[in-house]
Amino acid sequence: MSQTDNAAVAAHLSHVRIVMVNTTLPANIGSALRAMKTMGLCKLVLVDPKTYPHPDIDTLAAGATDLIEQIEVVEQLEDAIADCHLVFGTSARSRTIPWPLLDARPAAEKSLNAVAQHGQNVAIIFGREDRGLTNEELALANYHVTIPVNEEYGVLNVAQAIQVICYEMRMAAIDIVGKIADPAATMQVTDSEAMQWDEPLVNHEQMQQFYPHLEKMLAEIEFMDPKNPRLLPLRLRRLFGRIQLDRMEYHLLRGIFSRVQAMNNGSWKKSTSTQDEDQTNA
Amino acid sequence: MSQTDNAAVAAHLSHVRIVMVNTTLPANIGSALRAMKTMGLCKLVLVDPKTYPHPDIDTLAAGATDLIEQIEVVEQLEDAIADCHLVFGTSARSRTIPWPLLDARPAAEKSLNAVAQHGQNVAIIFGREDRGLTNEELALANYHVTIPVNEEYGVLNVAQAIQVICYEMRMAAIDIVGKIADPAATMQVTDSEAMQWDEPLVNHEQMQQFYPHLEKMLAEIEFMDPKNPRLLPLRLRRLFGRIQLDRMEYHLLRGIFSRVQAMNNGSWKKSTSTQDEDQTNA
Repeated sequence: MSQTDNAAVAAHLSHVRIVMVNTTLPANIGSALRAMKTMGLCKLVLVDPKTYPHPDIDTLAAGATDLIEQIEVVEQLEDAIADCHLVFGTSARSRTIPWPLLDARPAAEKSLNAVAQHGQNVAIIFGREDRGLTNEELALANYHVTIPVNEEYGVLNVAQAIQVICYEMRMAAIDIVGKIADPAATMQVTDSEAMQWDEPLVNHEQMQQFYPHLEKMLAEIEFMDPKNPRLLPLRLRRLFGRIQLDRMEYHLLRGIFSRVQAMNNGSWKKSTSTQDEDQTNA
Repeated sequence: MSQTDNAAVAAHLSHVRIVMVNTTLPANIGSALRAMKTMGLCKLVLVDPKTYPHPDIDTLAAGATDLIEQIEVVEQLEDAIADCHLVFGTSARSRTIPWPLLDARPAAEKSLNAVAQHGQNVAIIFGREDRGLTNEELALANYHVTIPVNEEYGVLNVAQAIQVICYEMRMAAIDIVGKIADPAATMQVTDSEAMQWDEPLVNHEQMQQFYPHLEKMLAEIEFMDPKNPRLLPLRLRRLFGRIQLDRMEYHLLRGIFSRVQAMNNGSWKKSTSTQDEDQTNA
């Protein structure tokens, strides 16, 4: 990601705050800050924390001290979310009254859409370590959000839950910023193979010189009968077609083919020492 | 999610193992188990852990004791991944040679596709707390996987990274199981990897016989200096690691290597007619 993009992602995420209610363990606050900073969130609001401040927060949040300075401490949950447009309450249990419920991923997409399109502020509220949020607190949320965990062991602690939510928020922000930067890419964003590569990949035209070379070499070492090659050319095309060779790999392989040919027809003289070996391609 | 679906998700995730190399802090092993169990993964392999067993593991993995019993401890990374088809190395840094790199989400999609379509085994390797994985260890992977963190503070610890990866694996498993349950949704998978394959794909262990054979052949035709191979072995691993050879391709290529060797040392006598050519592999 470019620096500009990273800044744009950060700008979007600055609208998303984490709210922790009645947190008991300072270590969880520290872990939350670290998770937030790693994912590019910066605003933490503590509602009536049991122990604050505390050195454990600083220890666990090593390197995220700038976020410690920005922590806001309030007495009432209402104060933490007053200027927010979209409020999510985290809840593992189903409640007496069903609430609009979103998984973490669609919740993050909804949040970042709200930020990008309307400049809204978003809050995600996390409850006490032992009891979560009360029904009254959950009722302050627009949506409840849940992380789809193993139903037989659904015990993410609060720091882990914040980690996952912050990660999804970042992924949604990256997605939104990418779409803004390149609207044409919107349809096929999830290019699973989109990777940074050091060499350009060879095109179809170059590969059409690669296969005849390979087949000629195979014929010369009598591995393939050019008059009756059977399925071999097809298998080789299927095999190398899956790789998408880069330019250096292409020349490396063609160099090997040429060496085999030269060895085979005697035009390459075996060296007696090892010093004159051709290593230009590696 | 229905109970059946939860079981199907668990069955898929049983093919995905977490591998931790040279872990120093037992607490990180405990946290990893908890993260795994929460997301429905069950298999942890420890490669030469510094401190094991240790009570901190049990404390941090509270409620995941069944996973502790299933932990496998091995001495070499190779032993941890021998029966795996798809191996991911986690890496924050860019290396001398760029490797096929996927973000956590597409990596998880690729993994669960490999499980669902081919019943393959998948490993995700996590490195030391302080130094991550070595270049040699990373070269054993088909792909490198990265979590797209804040570039100004990219310091997920190993437990947090395992949490995010396990979460993405679960999300991908839920997605796959949902598509199996609802075949109508299958059409929009648009997965380039979704192909019926006629031959089983070879695993990591077989590939570890492939590379030495290839390198021996290259040394014999004096294309590679075994005393100073430079980046060539790494480039070849990166190249063939991208394909996932099937069994026939594997034997086809090894057959070519053997023929080149035999031609080169004179043990294969050139035919005068064309009728006795070896075509058994095509």
